[in-house]
Amino acid sequence: MTKDVSHGTQDSYLVALIGSGIGPSLSPALHEREADRQGLRYVYRLLDIDVLGVPPEAVGDLVRAARDLGFDGLNITHPCKQLVIPHLDGLAPQAEALGAVNTVVFDDGRAVGHNTDVTGFAASFARGLPDAPLERVVQLGAGGAGAAVAHATLTLGAGRVTVVDAFPERAAALADSLNRHFGAGRADSTTPDRLARLLARADGVVHATPTGMAAHPGLPFPAEFLHAGLWVAEVVYRPLETELLRAARAQGCAVLDGGGMAVFQAADAFRLFTGQEPDSTRMLADIAELAGAVPVPD
Amino acid sequence: MTKDVSHGTQDSYLVALIGSGIGPSLSPALHEREADRQGLRYVYRLLDIDVLGVPPEAVGDLVRAARDLGFDGLNITHPCKQLVIPHLDGLAPQAEALGAVNTVVFDDGRAVGHNTDVTGFAASFARGLPDAPLERVVQLGAGGAGAAVAHATLTLGAGRVTVVDAFPERAAALADSLNRHFGAGRADSTTPDRLARLLARADGVVHATPTGMAAHPGLPFPAEFLHAGLWVAEVVYRPLETELLRAARAQGCAVLDGGGMAVFQAADAFRLFTGQEPDSTRMLADIAELAGAVPVPD
Repeated sequence: MTKDVSHGTQDSYLVALIGSGIGPSLSPALHEREADRQGLRYVYRLLDIDVLGVPPEAVGDLVRAARDLGFDGLNITHPCKQLVIPHLDGLAPQAEALGAVNTVVFDDGRAVGHNTDVTGFAASFARGLPDAPLERVVQLGAGGAGAAVAHATLTLGAGRVTVVDAFPERAAALADSLNRHFGAGRADSTTPDRLARLLARADGVVHATPTGMAAHPGLPFPAEFLHAGLWVAEVVYRPLETELLRAARAQGCAVLDGGGMAVFQAADAFRLFTGQEPDSTRMLADIAELAGAVPVPD
Repeated sequence: MTKDVSHGTQDSYLVALIGSGIGPSLSPALHEREADRQGLRYVYRLLDIDVLGVPPEAVGDLVRAARDLGFDGLNITHPCKQLVIPHLDGLAPQAEALGAVNTVVFDDGRAVGHNTDVTGFAASFARGLPDAPLERVVQLGAGGAGAAVAHATLTLGAGRVTVVDAFPERAAALADSLNRHFGAGRADSTTPDRLARLLARADGVVHATPTGMAAHPGLPFPAEFLHAGLWVAEVVYRPLETELLRAARAQGCAVLDGGGMAVFQAADAFRLFTGQEPDSTRMLADIAELAGAVPVPD
């Protein structure tokens, strides 16, 4: 690291997001706006492997180059969150448990992987649905986001998470992994045809599929499965108000939009990169403005 | 290039200096202060090959990595100004003529080399000694800085530059190169023992050796060689007021300190990196403060 602190310039922070198709990412704006309010010199760049014309496996080379060129850290997204792991020198506990990294911090030449998707969803949930009962949680979606939020929900103390996915093997694999990490019986899996019965008895549902994004409009399940006794937590944040959340509000459900997870994963990464405490309330106002103002990817 | 301009963040600029022993460089402060006044998000990093533990020949790898990682440009200094050339996609005229690059601009994946030492010294001279006669110029020092300022002096219209160096071959090689680029008879070379006679008949002298820097105190030649009819231009800028300039002022010489070259090379690079016009008057005030305030390297 070659920081210049001796000539009247303050510390500067240099970070980037590595992934595919990341042009519309809100991360640069979320990080840079908070840094500006704190008076920090902060540049957040997008390193899109599609734009660079390199395969996802090049993530290791990019991480090494970023370290050599004085970056303070990186965010990592699809399709590199698992591929990056063999190129790191250490993993924080959530990243190790999940087997996925969304944040890399360079420290004295060492690259350490973290997962602020897990901590970010947990923080968002604790803030937005502080009194939500967690005995029986249904989670729809067993992809990368689903794995992260299931880890978060169990970390928050959920009694049992039932993973529902159109691909039964993927749901079963996630449930197995959760049981290994959190103890037998904390997770199981099933198929979407059982959803109506599951939701009737559940305390809440976490929605972790792409349905409801601008490119995938619609509801992930029929609105009549909802009932006032169910809380509904959404991972999609573009738009912030998905069809699912609209339907849930109409039923009287307590709801959590996906903006909180987006903000808290960024806030947790910001804290790791800078050592400074971000103001998540101001960042929530940012994402409300940004997610509303920005054309969504198609 | 992956600039994020669509989410309410302004353009950001990311540049670095590559070289050896560059920790005390004033470039980060000069660039970042001017960027701050212009409201530009700007990070200027130091990539010291000694700190990285790589040889000077690694400059090509560093340039490619910087391009891939979204840097807007680089400054290049000792010992990489020549070594970088084979790794570039094009050269601006001054860089090509001089065979040395101090600034690399990335544009659509192409790396183009410039030399703002040449343009910077020319701009500083034109500003600080606008009416100086240029018929007979003596230049002391035929190293890298000497080559750059001799190109600048001849570009400004000097009739003849006599290059004086303790290494006669080096002086002769520079004179040959100058004659090839500017026309036969524009340059010649000699040894320091002829300096007294040369200066007696000269219009001005450009000092381009390290003598007078904090680590190399003293005068580059006896003060009695100076006379009121001689202008004296200094390349050393730490300290701004060298012993040579003090002696020259005492003789009534018109003088130019080295701060102007340092500022205008930075200003020219800033313009190349950003497309924005820097305010060189403000930058001159910066360097007066910075060069005075900062411990000099030893």
